[in-house]
Amino acid sequence: MGRIITLTTDFGLKDYYVGAMKGVILSINPDAILTDITHEIPPHSIFDSAFTLMNFYRYFPLGTIHVVVVDPGVGSKRKPIAVEADGNFFVGPDNGLFTFVYRLSKRYRAYEITDSKYVLSRISNTFHGRDIFAPAAAHLSLGVPVEDLGKKVGKPVTLEIKEPVVRGEEIIGEFIHVDSFGNLVSNIPSNLIKGKSRIHIGRRVVEGVSKSYSDVSKGELLAIIGSAGFLEISMNQGRASDVIDKNKALRVKNEE
Amino acid sequence: MGRIITLTTDFGLKDYYVGAMKGVILSINPDAILTDITHEIPPHSIFDSAFTLMNFYRYFPLGTIHVVVVDPGVGSKRKPIAVEADGNFFVGPDNGLFTFVYRLSKRYRAYEITDSKYVLSRISNTFHGRDIFAPAAAHLSLGVPVEDLGKKVGKPVTLEIKEPVVRGEEIIGEFIHVDSFGNLVSNIPSNLIKGKSRIHIGRRVVEGVSKSYSDVSKGELLAIIGSAGFLEISMNQGRASDVIDKNKALRVKNEE
Amino acid sequence: MGRIITLTTDFGLKDYYVGAMKGVILSINPDAILTDITHEIPPHSIFDSAFTLMNFYRYFPLGTIHVVVVDPGVGSKRKPIAVEADGNFFVGPDNGLFTFVYRLSKRYRAYEITDSKYVLSRISNTFHGRDIFAPAAAHLSLGVPVEDLGKKVGKPVTLEIKEPVVRGEEIIGEFIHVDSFGNLVSNIPSNLIKGKSRIHIGRRVVEGVSKSYSDVSKGELLAIIGSAGFLEISMNQGRASDVIDKNKALRVKNEE
Repeated sequence: MGRIITLTTDFGLKDYYVGAMKGVILSINPDAILTDITHEIPPHSIFDSAFTLMNFYRYFPLGTIHVVVVDPGVGSKRKPIAVEADGNFFVGPDNGLFTFVYRLSKRYRAYEITDSKYVLSRISNTFHGRDIFAPAAAHLSLGVPVEDLGKKVGKPVTLEIKEPVVRGEEIIGEFIHVDSFGNLVSNIPSNLIKGKSRIHIGRRVVEGVSKSYSDVSKGELLAIIGSAGFLEISMNQGRASDVIDKNKALRVKNEE
Repeated sequence: MGRIITLTTDFGLKDYYVGAMKGVILSINPDAILTDITHEIPPHSIFDSAFTLMNFYRYFPLGTIHVVVVDPGVGSKRKPIAVEADGNFFVGPDNGLFTFVYRLSKRYRAYEITDSKYVLSRISNTFHGRDIFAPAAAHLSLGVPVEDLGKKVGKPVTLEIKEPVVRGEEIIGEFIHVDSFGNLVSNIPSNLIKGKSRIHIGRRVVEGVSKSYSDVSKGELLAIIGSAGFLEISMNQGRASDVIDKNKALRVKNEE
Repeated sequence: MGRIITLTTDFGLKDYYVGAMKGVILSINPDAILTDITHEIPPHSIFDSAFTLMNFYRYFPLGTIHVVVVDPGVGSKRKPIAVEADGNFFVGPDNGLFTFVYRLSKRYRAYEITDSKYVLSRISNTFHGRDIFAPAAAHLSLGVPVEDLGKKVGKPVTLEIKEPVVRGEEIIGEFIHVDSFGNLVSNIPSNLIKGKSRIHIGRRVVEGVSKSYSDVSKGELLAIIGSAGFLEISMNQGRASDVIDKNKALRVKNEE
């Protein structure tokens, strides 16, 4: 088990919330290596955090503990869980946050966090990040086996993920994320893009998939395989999301 | 004395300010464990930082050094101070930032940072975070006793804190903080809320104190005991602050 | 070689980008000490990041590795480089980010990062921060000599920096940065300010250089030597940038 604990939340950075979680972790394991990922997940956006998590956790060393708290159901009956998946660890609410982790892993197992030894003695109704997830993660980082946290969860919650539809040489996809540069990330994986492609976004057409942003002039749209491995629509040194509606349909035609 | 140093400022994250403070600390003590709390305290908001500090510092291990720099009077005659309170350490300007620390601690003592050994050799007029507070904190983390930093401050500055007024079964409070989710935090502590409560915010009425956000429908207002231990007004998966003016009076009627 | 690695980017904090870089670094060197500077450089602003870097790197211990990724030309033919300058290390694209480092250093040398041993095995076209700069920095932190990364770059790219013009007792400068408090930072270094100065910003006049913000009333403009060592125009507890156009000409008249 490693000592690296990453933190991903929708808590923003204006409040004491992240600080309290860090204090709880360091009080239990002063040697934990805290690593902020983001605290600016859009509030309550479970899909966005699942997508974000998918794109960073695989770069961390095995044994890293990833705490993800985007938890609109805090205080209700949704379960707090800890997951081990191919040697990586995850702690957070059982609301679909770990959907891509389950998909990408050969083996995983999830446990409800119920043992009171591993959480704070007083549990608030509004802040399980501090009272349950932070202490559970800290105890994992001290070597507590994940199965000691509580009883096994048979079937953790997953999100329904929309897959692109392939019809011969045509692929129909949609945008699933807009990043802070205004790039629109689609759900079309790179391996579906073949030969010369023509991309239709509503009535707009982008010809071909570029190798780099600077393949087109400043301010021009382009299609590119982004770092998450999906087709993205971008603008060289500009924000594609300023001119393209992310709800627009996306069609790719692969040509010989 | 621990090696954990937390950082709380109103410097924002666009500039070099936080980076320069981190560099100063790590140059003096490369083994310091830097822990960002927030750099997004609203500019010059002493009360907000005092409230934030109150809600995270108690979760950190004893010996942690908390650097708080919200300092509209930088370069004027307000004192730079270091405080030890029940085994926790605090460094920042003497402008009321540590008001709640003094209230919550059994014993505390404050020292003006005057010994030039423990600050940078050149002190700017605008950035004591880098030139005084960061190096003083780093030296504390190396084991320098707090009393070595300078001479004792008899009566450090405190903010006037408005307490709620209790009139029989009625409590009159006010909102003291709006968090990044749009929750309105009041100054009414949980122990004043008894039995069935009816909460009046201006002309609006909320019946009862909920156990969790999901006790009401999405978009509906509720009252709840928040993680800071005060009564809060929230909206399930929405922003209460979008529909409630934080300057509105707050009255709670406890009913049998 | 130290183990401290600082991170400065324009990636923002909403996405997985910073998290993926941190994972790559910690996978290669789990003992690296990651230190966030900022991820909120305005998108693609090479000058802003060069200015920011100048103002924090000198406060870090020798041997620190500074990763700076503001990279509008990612995927094009601009070179990825690693620089050693007076014992400090820098990793990023060769697009002028390190201009001030070259100016401020007695000696520096730059190497193109070409050895595939020190980068990820798959290089995307859009995210060299993760695929090239993070792993190169991690290898440096493990003790790999900078000259092992690739071949020497004869003349790394530099930005043209506008210097103030001195005409007798008059100095004509311009604003080069607006910070998050709304302070306008000029390119006029403190050593050019002498005696009593009168500062003209367009038609507006500020008399004298203040010692602290509180030398003037709340809401009033002042001139002050800022923490970067340049003349700044500020407002006591307000935002000078709300009332002054940063494109306005700036003239200082030093008087006896």
